[in-house]
Amino acid sequence: MHGKQSTYPSRIVAIHTARRGTAYDPKGLPVEPVFGPPAASVEEFLDKARAEVVVELTPLNPESGEPAISHIRAAFARGLHVVTANKGPIAFAYSALRQEAIAAGVEFRFEAVTMDGTPVFNLVQNNLPGVEVLGFSGALNSTSQVILEAMRSGLSLEEGIEAARQIGVTEADPWFDINGWDSACKAAALANVLMNAQTTPQQVERKGIGRLTPAKLVELESKGKSVTLLSRARRTPQGVKLRVRAEVLDKDDILCACRGTSNLLVLHTDLMGDIGVFTLKPGLDQTAYGLFSDLVDIVRNI
Amino acid sequence: MHGKQSTYPSRIVAIHTARRGTAYDPKGLPVEPVFGPPAASVEEFLDKARAEVVVELTPLNPESGEPAISHIRAAFARGLHVVTANKGPIAFAYSALRQEAIAAGVEFRFEAVTMDGTPVFNLVQNNLPGVEVLGFSGALNSTSQVILEAMRSGLSLEEGIEAARQIGVTEADPWFDINGWDSACKAAALANVLMNAQTTPQQVERKGIGRLTPAKLVELESKGKSVTLLSRARRTPQGVKLRVRAEVLDKDDILCACRGTSNLLVLHTDLMGDIGVFTLKPGLDQTAYGLFSDLVDIVRNI
Repeated sequence: MHGKQSTYPSRIVAIHTARRGTAYDPKGLPVEPVFGPPAASVEEFLDKARAEVVVELTPLNPESGEPAISHIRAAFARGLHVVTANKGPIAFAYSALRQEAIAAGVEFRFEAVTMDGTPVFNLVQNNLPGVEVLGFSGALNSTSQVILEAMRSGLSLEEGIEAARQIGVTEADPWFDINGWDSACKAAALANVLMNAQTTPQQVERKGIGRLTPAKLVELESKGKSVTLLSRARRTPQGVKLRVRAEVLDKDDILCACRGTSNLLVLHTDLMGDIGVFTLKPGLDQTAYGLFSDLVDIVRNI
Repeated sequence: MHGKQSTYPSRIVAIHTARRGTAYDPKGLPVEPVFGPPAASVEEFLDKARAEVVVELTPLNPESGEPAISHIRAAFARGLHVVTANKGPIAFAYSALRQEAIAAGVEFRFEAVTMDGTPVFNLVQNNLPGVEVLGFSGALNSTSQVILEAMRSGLSLEEGIEAARQIGVTEADPWFDINGWDSACKAAALANVLMNAQTTPQQVERKGIGRLTPAKLVELESKGKSVTLLSRARRTPQGVKLRVRAEVLDKDDILCACRGTSNLLVLHTDLMGDIGVFTLKPGLDQTAYGLFSDLVDIVRNI
């Protein structure tokens, strides 16, 4: 993205890290900044950084959404716009954070949290005026797909985990992927934003891929079936129901079309029927682009 | 969409048809208007209609893009914004029409021309800032998909055409679909808008599905292969190259994932890699929504 700097001029004026220290330069830090001693707190860092937009990228605590939620609140309290690639705050506290952003008069963006920068939230917000999202079905967890593919070829679950580790897609603990917790966080994030569900990952009915065996997958494959870990949402009279489950589908179902790290989401809507988006084999570049597109969108809106 | 009238207030002040005559009412026509005698010309109609936006919906002459191109020019000449669901003008004359719209200070929208209202042009324009489209691959022709599916089940080409007629997806002449001309028009439209190709459907290398036999398709199916009519574009040092061809793909390729009338498009980009959109079994409602979303977008921009 460096080649586009002249079209989209911006400066990184400060970086605060967990392990490497903190760097400040109001004139703009270089690509390889020199880090000084760490700021005593995120609050101190934000006060010294004198930025306009905060980009929040801490690792997810998948049981609470912290510390990202507190970091975002600290930014809002200082009148700073926020972009995050962290699904926790959107899965656990979207409704409250959105209200706080509005009250503070700042923008809050998070396109990268569910599909590595593929337009999902912006798709609905910018391009589908008047459309109500009635539900969705998504293959959103790369690790489980890589593991299932390995198991379909006869490898064990453990060998599948190793394969996913080698291509760098697992969370620190692969069981967050295998037991469907990552998919539940993404389902909650999508439902909170697109369907005003006001839910949390704990409320998602969840069943992962841990009990599947290579023998079972090979047998299903021979019958023209395939297993995919899906996140689903639907509106019911009792509110939005969310479910994560390893589902057996016909192999030619588009929900099985994603191989490897690819992700796919179908939105079930009132006016546009079933429409979908996908990314083929995304990586960190796509996540970075999601942050960039959020930054551009904030500049357009302020 | 009638339920959303209060959120998106608008009036239809005049309708000009080829066969039923012309209707005017500056206060807004009812859902079932009474048509009077036809206007003597499109120019006379536009002068009497006193509209702000013209919605152009004439049937396509797939060899020239007329009469839609002339209708759009007549609207621009009167300072009117234009929305069209007609691929002809975009496939044959996009670059010139775009310049004319800019010169006239009016908006020109056409989201429904390639994928029945699924955001494609708006996706790139609104949600992918800074992204360059390097090429695309799309399954964009419903009729050929319905025919190929019929032939895979052992039916003849003629029976496949009849199946497509029954679900109402064929152009007036099904050979425009079968020989790839419709796909070529869509390829040219996409390339003109997304890649500034300044091309026409005549410049698309084209080979349809007419020579395929049920026996061949069944044989490929047994080998795990599938045939799909694809529109492809790529940038070369000699300019944008466009190709329409019935391609043999692995059955688990996402480009084969669309069954029936569903459409799918993969954009090959610099910053976002390969990202795609699709619609499952769209119909006239989706095309109508494409026009509606263009109207909303025009109101947002003026």
